[in-house]
Amino acid sequence: MPAFTATRRVEFRDTDAAGIMHFASFFPLMESVEHEFLRHLGLSVLARDAAGPFSWPRVNAQCEFQNAVRFENVLSVTLSISRLGTKSITYQFDVRHDDRPVATGSMTAVCCRLPTSGGPLQSMPIPAAVAEKLRPYCSE
Amino acid sequence: MPAFTATRRVEFRDTDAAGIMHFASFFPLMESVEHEFLRHLGLSVLARDAAGPFSWPRVNAQCEFQNAVRFENVLSVTLSISRLGTKSITYQFDVRHDDRPVATGSMTAVCCRLPTSGGPLQSMPIPAAVAEKLRPYCSE
Amino acid sequence: MPAFTATRRVEFRDTDAAGIMHFASFFPLMESVEHEFLRHLGLSVLARDAAGPFSWPRVNAQCEFQNAVRFENVLSVTLSISRLGTKSITYQFDVRHDDRPVATGSMTAVCCRLPTSGGPLQSMPIPAAVAEKLRPYCSE
Amino acid sequence: MPAFTATRRVEFRDTDAAGIMHFASFFPLMESVEHEFLRHLGLSVLARDAAGPFSWPRVNAQCEFQNAVRFENVLSVTLSISRLGTKSITYQFDVRHDDRPVATGSMTAVCCRLPTSGGPLQSMPIPAAVAEKLRPYCSE
Repeated sequence: MPAFTATRRVEFRDTDAAGIMHFASFFPLMESVEHEFLRHLGLSVLARDAAGPFSWPRVNAQCEFQNAVRFENVLSVTLSISRLGTKSITYQFDVRHDDRPVATGSMTAVCCRLPTSGGPLQSMPIPAAVAEKLRPYCSE
Repeated sequence: MPAFTATRRVEFRDTDAAGIMHFASFFPLMESVEHEFLRHLGLSVLARDAAGPFSWPRVNAQCEFQNAVRFENVLSVTLSISRLGTKSITYQFDVRHDDRPVATGSMTAVCCRLPTSGGPLQSMPIPAAVAEKLRPYCSE
Repeated sequence: MPAFTATRRVEFRDTDAAGIMHFASFFPLMESVEHEFLRHLGLSVLARDAAGPFSWPRVNAQCEFQNAVRFENVLSVTLSISRLGTKSITYQFDVRHDDRPVATGSMTAVCCRLPTSGGPLQSMPIPAAVAEKLRPYCSE
Repeated sequence: MPAFTATRRVEFRDTDAAGIMHFASFFPLMESVEHEFLRHLGLSVLARDAAGPFSWPRVNAQCEFQNAVRFENVLSVTLSISRLGTKSITYQFDVRHDDRPVATGSMTAVCCRLPTSGGPLQSMPIPAAVAEKLRPYCSE
């Protein structure tokens, strides 16, 4: 089963007055790697088909923090897919700095039609062509 | 000429590893007070008229920083309008902590029609009913 | 058992190109309410005792999202304590918009001594005077 | 006179409900390129010498916005130094997307000693070894 790994450097805006990377900044970090993964597959998190735009709002996000990291540390982030459902996907993330574990997280996103005029989001089946590209990364 | 004053507390996510409020966080701070000001007038920065949604993208933002502030400091932010044009508005902001000057900034925003399908933004005249509510705060 | 409730408005910087509040912004939202809760008790998340500064780095943060919210929506955030350990605390958060459930989250933070010169954080027992103020909000 | 150019992709967290990159996110973007530039010279914005830590708090930041950019656009950011003073430095930034001008900005930072226990920041002369590395990028 292939995994996908990307690197990210701790930016100054993501540090806080405790001198470390702010815990909340791990969520956009993981999301940024998810988006890089989708681009790597020729996909995008903000997509469009014949019926209009669709995207992947999150229904769950979780992170455990093992070790603090600081400004300019280079992080290695490994993504895999722990579950690929009909309408949803769960990603796993493993963040490391050199040989230290830093954080492990997960995010579950649901494929949804984006309304163009402010109405509610509607879940939809993951398009077959999208699911086919994601499946090889699934550890189920 | 009336001015509009709001208070904001320095949140932890807006601090950085130098132990102070991150300079870039002053821009969403000023914007947040602009939005509170617009709500105070019964307006919103994301509005809609018969022709569709319109908003106020910024063409210029500037800030000078006089004194650092820290987590949980309470800031007083005073807004005035230094220029109200046909299609644009320039806000002035004065940020203080107790009796210390903290920052002075400005932002110029242009009234624009928001395309619903990703095309370019188009500037438009400020609706008369909007301009009328803004004019009393203009120092010109 | 008392709970603590605060309100927060969805700021523009916390929205994203899907038109809704960005999922990652719920974490600084919950943290901001935690900090308001601590101030309400006469405490601070960045504190100092005779031995130097201490704080509460997070070891776990989690959030489930039920309904999307949009710019300028006013959110009600209720905090309670689900576990108060010797060195750690777990907060629960319930976020609502009018009568709609929006998100439920939790965060576990460990009381830690902050090194002044960049060394590792060291966990420490929650000072008795601090624990005493927190205990009434504990649902255990 | 050499310039320094880096690329950055518009991340989802930096977009807003108007569907474009949020104006305030250009400031951490420019700062991130400044930091990459300093690393390229073997320097860091958070440095330390025999007398303790020092950094570069900003006294001025400014940005003009020419064209909106969207999620996943790749930006080219060119940095040069318009002024190198005894204690301060002014950077210029030119942000482009393909052949479109996107934003031009500047930031002035002052070399300051960071107090270890919360006192005021004190400006200090830029260390000679630092100034020597910066001078070749100065357009004065």
